[in-house]
Amino acid sequence: MEKFKTILNIAHKQTNLGCGLVALLTAGGEQIFSTVVFRCPCSELSFLYGLVSMLVPALALLLLGYILNKRTWKLLTGVCHREAKLSCWKMLATTWVIFFQISTMALVAPSSWIAVALLNGNYFECMMTGINASAIKEHLCEKVTSPAKCTDHLHGLPCATDIIPTADRDEVLLSLRAMSQIAGWLLIASIMLCNLMLTCLGRCMSPISYLQLKFWKVYAQEENNLIDSYTSKHAKELAERNLKSFFDRKFPEPIHIPSNRDWENIS
Amino acid sequence: MEKFKTILNIAHKQTNLGCGLVALLTAGGEQIFSTVVFRCPCSELSFLYGLVSMLVPALALLLLGYILNKRTWKLLTGVCHREAKLSCWKMLATTWVIFFQISTMALVAPSSWIAVALLNGNYFECMMTGINASAIKEHLCEKVTSPAKCTDHLHGLPCATDIIPTADRDEVLLSLRAMSQIAGWLLIASIMLCNLMLTCLGRCMSPISYLQLKFWKVYAQEENNLIDSYTSKHAKELAERNLKSFFDRKFPEPIHIPSNRDWENIS
Amino acid sequence: MEKFKTILNIAHKQTNLGCGLVALLTAGGEQIFSTVVFRCPCSELSFLYGLVSMLVPALALLLLGYILNKRTWKLLTGVCHREAKLSCWKMLATTWVIFFQISTMALVAPSSWIAVALLNGNYFECMMTGINASAIKEHLCEKVTSPAKCTDHLHGLPCATDIIPTADRDEVLLSLRAMSQIAGWLLIASIMLCNLMLTCLGRCMSPISYLQLKFWKVYAQEENNLIDSYTSKHAKELAERNLKSFFDRKFPEPIHIPSNRDWENIS
Repeated sequence: MEKFKTILNIAHKQTNLGCGLVALLTAGGEQIFSTVVFRCPCSELSFLYGLVSMLVPALALLLLGYILNKRTWKLLTGVCHREAKLSCWKMLATTWVIFFQISTMALVAPSSWIAVALLNGNYFECMMTGINASAIKEHLCEKVTSPAKCTDHLHGLPCATDIIPTADRDEVLLSLRAMSQIAGWLLIASIMLCNLMLTCLGRCMSPISYLQLKFWKVYAQEENNLIDSYTSKHAKELAERNLKSFFDRKFPEPIHIPSNRDWENIS
Repeated sequence: MEKFKTILNIAHKQTNLGCGLVALLTAGGEQIFSTVVFRCPCSELSFLYGLVSMLVPALALLLLGYILNKRTWKLLTGVCHREAKLSCWKMLATTWVIFFQISTMALVAPSSWIAVALLNGNYFECMMTGINASAIKEHLCEKVTSPAKCTDHLHGLPCATDIIPTADRDEVLLSLRAMSQIAGWLLIASIMLCNLMLTCLGRCMSPISYLQLKFWKVYAQEENNLIDSYTSKHAKELAERNLKSFFDRKFPEPIHIPSNRDWENIS
Repeated sequence: MEKFKTILNIAHKQTNLGCGLVALLTAGGEQIFSTVVFRCPCSELSFLYGLVSMLVPALALLLLGYILNKRTWKLLTGVCHREAKLSCWKMLATTWVIFFQISTMALVAPSSWIAVALLNGNYFECMMTGINASAIKEHLCEKVTSPAKCTDHLHGLPCATDIIPTADRDEVLLSLRAMSQIAGWLLIASIMLCNLMLTCLGRCMSPISYLQLKFWKVYAQEENNLIDSYTSKHAKELAERNLKSFFDRKFPEPIHIPSNRDWENIS
C-alpha cells in the first residue's frame, strides 16, 4: 500500500514521468484491446467500425482526463458567481491559460491511443478497405493482377477470403499498413513539436527566471499539502465541538471559521 | 482484515477510484458470466433471452446500487413525517439534487455492465438473430451467397449449425459484432460526456469555492466518523445504566437523551 | 478463531454484508450440490425429482433461517400468556412487523438457492422433460426433425441417449435452459425490486430520523451484549450463594432476583 502511494506521489510530482506512465499504460491497453476485441467486419460497415474504434475510445480518454484532473474542478467550482469581481479581460486570459494546461495533460492519453492505433495499422486497414468512394478503391487496387476483382471485394481483404489471390491481398494490405504507420509517426512528431513550441513560447514570455519558477512550483505544492492537513485538523475540531454540544447539551464554544470571502481570496 | 478495511476506506473517500473499482469488477463479472452461463438458445426465444440477459442484470445492479448506498436511507428515513416543516420548493429541490447524486453512483455498475456486454458482442448477436421482423432478417442476409437459406435459419447462426456455409455465417456474425461494438463505444462516450457536462454545470453553479467545498467534505466525513463513536459510547452508557437499575433495583440516574427534535435538526 | 469471530461479528452488524455472505454461500452450495448429487432420472419421475430438488432444499433453508434467528424465539417465547395485556390491535401490528422482518432475513437463502438453480438450468431441464402433458411435449418438440420420436422419448433427453439425434437434443435443451435463465433473472430482479419498495415504504413511514434510528440500533445491540454478561454474572452469584448455604448449612443471604413481571417488561 505504502509503496503504491509513493509511486503515485512521485508520478504526481514529476509531470513528465506521469505523462510517460499514462502514455505507456494507454499503449498497452490499446494493444490488448486490438487483439482481444477488435474484429474487422469486412463489409460496408468497416469504415464506420474502424473510425469509431479509433476515435471514440480516444474521446472517452480525453473526457476521463478532464474528469480526473483536480484543476478542472478548481477552475470550474463557483465560476458563475465569481465572474463579476476581477476585470473581465485578465480573468478570461487566466482561465484560458489554465484550461490550456489542463488540456495538454488530458490530451496525453488520447493522442497516444491514436498514435499506437496508427502504428499498429489494423484499424486503418479496416477503415480504408471499407470506404465507399470508387476513386480510392481504384487507387488501392491499381497495381494488383486483377484490379476489377480487387475493387469489388476490397472490403473483404482484412478477413483473408479466398476470392482475391494472396499476393494481391498482401500488396494492398502492406501498402495500407505503411500509410498508417507513416501517419502515426507524423502524428507523434507533430504533437511533440507543437508541445515543445508552445512550452518554449510560454517559458520565454514568463516574467520570472527558471529558479524562481521552480521555487514557486515547490511553494504551490507545499501549500497544497499543508492546506490538506490544516483542513482536516480544522474540520475534526469543528465536528468534535458540534457533536459534544449536541450530546451533552452544552453551548458550543465559538470557533473561528473563515468566511466565504476569505476562502475565495486564497483560492 | 486491516488491509481490506484500508482499501475500502480509500475507495470510499476517493469517489473516482471507487467508481473505477466498481466498473472494473462489473466488467470482470460480466466476462465470467458471459463465458460460463450465457448459451444462446438459437431459436425464436433468442431475442427475449438476449434482451433479458443484457438488461435484467443491469437492473438488478442498479437496484443494488440504491440499496447499498447509505445516503438513500438517510434521505428516505422519516421523509413522510418531515415534509410539512420546510418550505415545499426548497425541500423538493434538495431532495432531487441528492437523488440525482445517488443515481449517478448507482448507475456506474449497470452502465458498465451494458457497455461491456455490447463490446463483447455475443448478447447482441443472439438478440438480433432471434428477432422476428423479416425486414431485419433480409437486411442481415442480403450480402451472403444464399440469402433465402440465411433468412430461414438466421436464429441458428450463433450455434454453428451446418445448414449455412461458414463464410456466410462469419460475414453476418462479424457485421453484428461490429454493430454491437459501435453501439457500446457510443454508449460509453455519451455517458462520459453527459457525466462531465452535468458535473461541470453543478460545480459552476456552486456558491462556494473549491477549497471551501473540500473543507466541508472533510468536515462531513469527520462528523460522520465522530457520530459513530459518540453514538456507540452514549448507547453503551445508557444500556449499562438501564440494566444496572433493573438487576439492582436502584432508580436510574438521569441521563440526557437528545429529543426527537434535536435528532431531526442535525440530520 | 479470533479472526473468524471478528468476521462473524461484522457480518452480524452489517445486515447487507451478512445477507450477501449468506447468498454467496448458498449459491456456492447449490453449485456443489447440483454437480455432485443431482442426477436426472430421465423417466416419468423426472418432473417430481426436479421439483423436489429445487423447492425442498429452499424450504429447508427457509426453516433454518427461522430457526437460527434469535428474534423468532424472542417473539414466540411466552406469547400465549402475554396476549391479554396490551391492546389487541397494537400487539398484532407489532407482531406482524417483527414477523415480516424475520421473514425478510429468512428468505435470503432460499430465494438465492432458487435463483441460482434457475440460472444453472439443469433442474428446470429435468423438470420440463419429465412433464406428462402432451401439449407441452409437442410444443417443445415442434421444431426438431423428428417430432414424433422427440415427443415419445422426451424424458430421456437430459441423459444423452442415442435415440434422438444430437442436433435435436441440443435444440430442445438449449431452449429449456434459456427459459430457465430468463425465469431466474426475472425472479432476481423482482425480489430486489420488491425488497427495495418495501424497505423504502418502511423507512419513509418511520417517525424518527436516520441518525436516531442508527443510535437506537446501536443501543439495542449494546443492551443485548450487556444482558449476556450481566445475566451470567448474576446467575453465578446466585448459584454460589445457594450451594454455599447448602453445604455450610447457613441461611442464604437474601439476593434480589427480578420477578417474572420485571422480566416481561424488559423483553
